[in-house]
Order: sequence, then structure tokens, then C-alpha cells
Amino acid sequence: MGSRDEAAIRALIDRWTKAAHEKNVDGVMSIYQRGQSLVAYDLVPPLQYKGWDAYRDDYKAFFGQYDGPIEFEFRDLVIAAGATFGYSHALQRVSGTLKGGQKAAFWLRVTDVYRKIGGQWRVVHEHVSVPTNLETGKAELNLTP
Amino acid sequence: MGSRDEAAIRALIDRWTKAAHEKNVDGVMSIYQRGQSLVAYDLVPPLQYKGWDAYRDDYKAFFGQYDGPIEFEFRDLVIAAGATFGYSHALQRVSGTLKGGQKAAFWLRVTDVYRKIGGQWRVVHEHVSVPTNLETGKAELNLTP
Repeated sequence: MGSRDEAAIRALIDRWTKAAHEKNVDGVMSIYQRGQSLVAYDLVPPLQYKGWDAYRDDYKAFFGQYDGPIEFEFRDLVIAAGATFGYSHALQRVSGTLKGGQKAAFWLRVTDVYRKIGGQWRVVHEHVSVPTNLETGKAELNLTP
Repeated sequence: MGSRDEAAIRALIDRWTKAAHEKNVDGVMSIYQRGQSLVAYDLVPPLQYKGWDAYRDDYKAFFGQYDGPIEFEFRDLVIAAGATFGYSHALQRVSGTLKGGQKAAFWLRVTDVYRKIGGQWRVVHEHVSVPTNLETGKAELNLTP
């Protein structure tokens, strides 16, 4: 356990949250490892996004669906880190107004894996999802913690 | 990067795969950290499973849906570890015959975070999901890598 490392990861999460609220793609992407090593499993298809550029395009599409800022609320946030690898996970409520004027709000599960590279912590893997109801085939977008 | 640690994590994944194929709940649960610190975000609701006992019940329910063994295929498996924390992620095809006789097969995304505790690597966090189609509200159970 490195409390300084955990504070550095917490700072990345705070930076992400501020940038995502403002739909600032460059600010959001500053926490992710550049290049091809980043692999993200996002809420939306495809099964995986391989590399920083692909995930940036995904964020642009996400932010483009919203009119005005997006609100993020975290619940049950866990952060832990060693010397080289760390992780965080949380439930995250995303809410805002879609371009058509409709309000949208749902709770996600978010997992991040961090790696310290050249003295800097960066996200090398992210996994975002909601549960699936296997009887109906529907995504569970209305669950609350 | 510790190749011996990565080999130990690989051995856990192999143990899980063999046990899950046989629907052996105790074998599967042997790779997870005991107690309340384990937090799992599974394919199915609720949003989170808190603790080893809750996740064991979830596995029992999962295995109980199948008649005969379950097949698991991994694609794009990544494993990395430091001295204290490690992670793995992969696409995973689950296939088998449900109790009603129906064949089921789908590709999942699986992320695991490992922690070395008392010299032993254990899973402290797991995240399993499929993507969501936000236009239809359906879970994407028919995607292929």
C-alpha cells in the first residue's frame, strides 16, 4: 500500500471527473496511457477498444450525445496501489440532457487499472458496464445502489 | 514486471477454468480473496457483489443454470503484475447447454485484479460484462471478437 501513490491515482480520478463534466476530450484522455497498450471495455460496443486513439473516438461520440454538461456521482470508490500497479473501482451515476432534450441517468460499474510509467500513473485498462438481465436480454439501466 | 508473478496469476486462471468447466464451486472460489474485501461486478444483477460469500452464491446460481459441463474460450488474454498488485483481462466465450436443453453461447469481457497476500496471489476484484446497445436498451449478447 502506498498512500502517496493512492493519492496520485485519486488526483487522476478527480482530473477525469472535472474534464468529463465539461466534455473536454483532451482533458479526459490525459489520464490514459498513450499508444496501443490501452485496452478498454466500454458500456457500448464493440467488445473492446484497442489503443488510445480508438478510445478517444469513443469518448468523442459519448460526449457528442449530450447537450450541456454531464454530471458524475461516485459511490463505494475503492483505490489501492503498489509500486507499479494500482486499481480503482466504483459505482458511478451518469446524468445529463441528451441532444434531443431527453434526460438520461443511469448507474454504471467502473473499473480502472493503473500503471506507473516513467514516474507517472496512467490508466492501462478500463472496464465500464451495467448488468444484463439474461431472461429478457435487456441491459439493466435502472438499477440503484 | 515479474514473470514469476505473472506465471502464478496464469496458474490461477487455469485453475479457475478447469473448475468452472466442471461447475466446481469450491475450486472456482479458491482463487478469490476470502472475506468482505472482494467486490465483484458480474454479468448479472445486482450492481455489485460484496464479499466472498455473496460471490459464491452467484457462482452457484450460474452453474445451476447449466446441464453438463460449461466450455470457456479465452481471446486476447493480457496478464501483468508488480510485487503486490496484478491484473488480467480477456474476452471469454462461454458456451453450454441450459437446463431446459437450449444451447447458450456468448462472448464476455472479463477483468480481474489480483493482490499478493501472505505470498499468495488472490483475486480482489472482478468485472464481467457484455456491452449495451443504448438505442434498443438490449445487452449485446451476439458480438464476436
